[in-house]
Amino acid sequence: MAMKILGIGGSLRKGSYSAALLRAATELLPNGVTMEIADLSGIPMFNQDDEASPPEPVRRFKSQIKEADAILFSTPEYNFGIPGYLKNAIDWASRPNGDNSFKDKPAAIMSSSGGMLGGIKAQLQLRQILVYLDMHALNDSIVASGVNKIIDADGKLTDQRMRDRVKQVVEELVAWANRLSAKR
Amino acid sequence: MAMKILGIGGSLRKGSYSAALLRAATELLPNGVTMEIADLSGIPMFNQDDEASPPEPVRRFKSQIKEADAILFSTPEYNFGIPGYLKNAIDWASRPNGDNSFKDKPAAIMSSSGGMLGGIKAQLQLRQILVYLDMHALNDSIVASGVNKIIDADGKLTDQRMRDRVKQVVEELVAWANRLSAKR
Amino acid sequence: MAMKILGIGGSLRKGSYSAALLRAATELLPNGVTMEIADLSGIPMFNQDDEASPPEPVRRFKSQIKEADAILFSTPEYNFGIPGYLKNAIDWASRPNGDNSFKDKPAAIMSSSGGMLGGIKAQLQLRQILVYLDMHALNDSIVASGVNKIIDADGKLTDQRMRDRVKQVVEELVAWANRLSAKR
Amino acid sequence: MAMKILGIGGSLRKGSYSAALLRAATELLPNGVTMEIADLSGIPMFNQDDEASPPEPVRRFKSQIKEADAILFSTPEYNFGIPGYLKNAIDWASRPNGDNSFKDKPAAIMSSSGGMLGGIKAQLQLRQILVYLDMHALNDSIVASGVNKIIDADGKLTDQRMRDRVKQVVEELVAWANRLSAKR
Repeated sequence: MAMKILGIGGSLRKGSYSAALLRAATELLPNGVTMEIADLSGIPMFNQDDEASPPEPVRRFKSQIKEADAILFSTPEYNFGIPGYLKNAIDWASRPNGDNSFKDKPAAIMSSSGGMLGGIKAQLQLRQILVYLDMHALNDSIVASGVNKIIDADGKLTDQRMRDRVKQVVEELVAWANRLSAKR
Repeated sequence: MAMKILGIGGSLRKGSYSAALLRAATELLPNGVTMEIADLSGIPMFNQDDEASPPEPVRRFKSQIKEADAILFSTPEYNFGIPGYLKNAIDWASRPNGDNSFKDKPAAIMSSSGGMLGGIKAQLQLRQILVYLDMHALNDSIVASGVNKIIDADGKLTDQRMRDRVKQVVEELVAWANRLSAKR
Repeated sequence: MAMKILGIGGSLRKGSYSAALLRAATELLPNGVTMEIADLSGIPMFNQDDEASPPEPVRRFKSQIKEADAILFSTPEYNFGIPGYLKNAIDWASRPNGDNSFKDKPAAIMSSSGGMLGGIKAQLQLRQILVYLDMHALNDSIVASGVNKIIDADGKLTDQRMRDRVKQVVEELVAWANRLSAKR
Repeated sequence: MAMKILGIGGSLRKGSYSAALLRAATELLPNGVTMEIADLSGIPMFNQDDEASPPEPVRRFKSQIKEADAILFSTPEYNFGIPGYLKNAIDWASRPNGDNSFKDKPAAIMSSSGGMLGGIKAQLQLRQILVYLDMHALNDSIVASGVNKIIDADGKLTDQRMRDRVKQVVEELVAWANRLSAKR
């Protein structure tokens, strides 16, 4: 069955670990699954006064989310939480009231850090946020520690074990999305 | 003893509940305590490439934090978490590595929402973030529910019970800061 | 479609608010749905040495979970978390390794307190625990505040609005369980 | 200055990793500091009807807490949370209302697991619980991963790097307790 995944969260600069995980995912898709990666770089600071007619980068982001069958988040950890830029993009896309783009979407989470704990604290905060967004997060997830050692100078995820894990979680996300969309 | 508090978090638009709580705090200070409110409006999206020489609004924000004896956070709740704009400001001020402006500062938290739960979920996420920032958060806190009913059209906190609570928490923050700065 | 719900968490003493919510749920079931309430009172403190051949109350609890199509948790809040007795019962039922009774079960959460915040902090901790248990928690939930005012002296939930909410969440749980079990 | 630390949390069975961390701490104390380890094994399931006159093991536990100048928690992770037996002991010691034994005590946290993440998820839940208990948790903490490789068959922490970390955190806890008890 054809399925579209949207990847959200990695910054676009070369060397971003979270972006490298998203790019790796695009190389490891099951047959029939396509994936694009959202560009968050043009999204301004959220302003509730503008939520009814958001700027173009936000409109585009919201369209991408709505057209996707499943969302794959990739978050670094800043100060034990998700980065402000990622939360800001989520805040835009969840608004205005009654037009939450994320509603009822299946999701999976990848977190990463150079340290030992692989961004798990950010991941737990993101998981709580997804409850409010009424998303359905896969229980399995990627926790990528020591990412500076498993990604090369060109920003490519080279570690085979982590590539296998990314492939596995993407497959689980596809199966989860299929399960949730099954006709009763 | 003279003490300076910095208020962080309320948006500056008229009608912001979290800003109204900060303004109320400035009216309820103990003798000898002064308070200013940080202006987050000019702070751009965090870019790690610029962290060593941040833009002027960030430099100013970092100076205000460093000069403060205590921090009073006021956060709304967006999607079960703190707003992206607040996290983004925190991300800037904690960087670059080795120059975390918040380090060792005492803090108190106010959260607010129009609903019943008063932003407590955002407050819990903020509390976790303060651990990484090496701040010392007061255990008592403000949880302001139904804020649309206790703040008037001019953005003034009019409810006497909530004003008393804000006064109490500010006094507790001052006592906590004094306790932490005592000479041994 | 026939469905069995297992209620977990309310203490059995008369006057327990969390038990009152579970009993109310049994009175508000959709057609074709049955519900029983687990008796946690005989479950001893978890001892990993005994996990392979647990005592009889644990064996019975595990059987009830496995036979259920969906789980309805009802938790009070002790010290910002779920009670030790509830976590202890969960710890038993998740073991031994490879025999997690909760695996892949749909669930919904009710939390309660006499205070304003309705046990939401316990509920968030329970939600995190359910991720590890590989359960699928409904995003909607019951947050019952001021429960001492909505339950009568006989331990009956008398407040009509809360009864309507319990009915709604039970219906959502049934729909969620049906969605998850649909054939593809 | 003389100071007494109470260690809480490790199970007493030989081979318990969290108990091994507590025992290591007793070997690494600064001059003038003494430490004992609470025995949680006889504490029954919390029963609110008995909280005013708790059983002897609970009375003893409460006395030990009150006599301590600082608390060192050591928790394994069960199902992404703290074990039921540890939460149950905390629930007893925080009661009855108005007689919370933990009130205003400084604390530090050690968490441990055989896996990569060192019980950090349990640690974060415990940290939230300490807020309600009105304890003052050190921001630094021990996160001991792969503990099965750093503790020998006799239950002794043999890894020198982890021993150094335990020593460091104990010293930080002592300094933190001194700072909090300083006369103004």
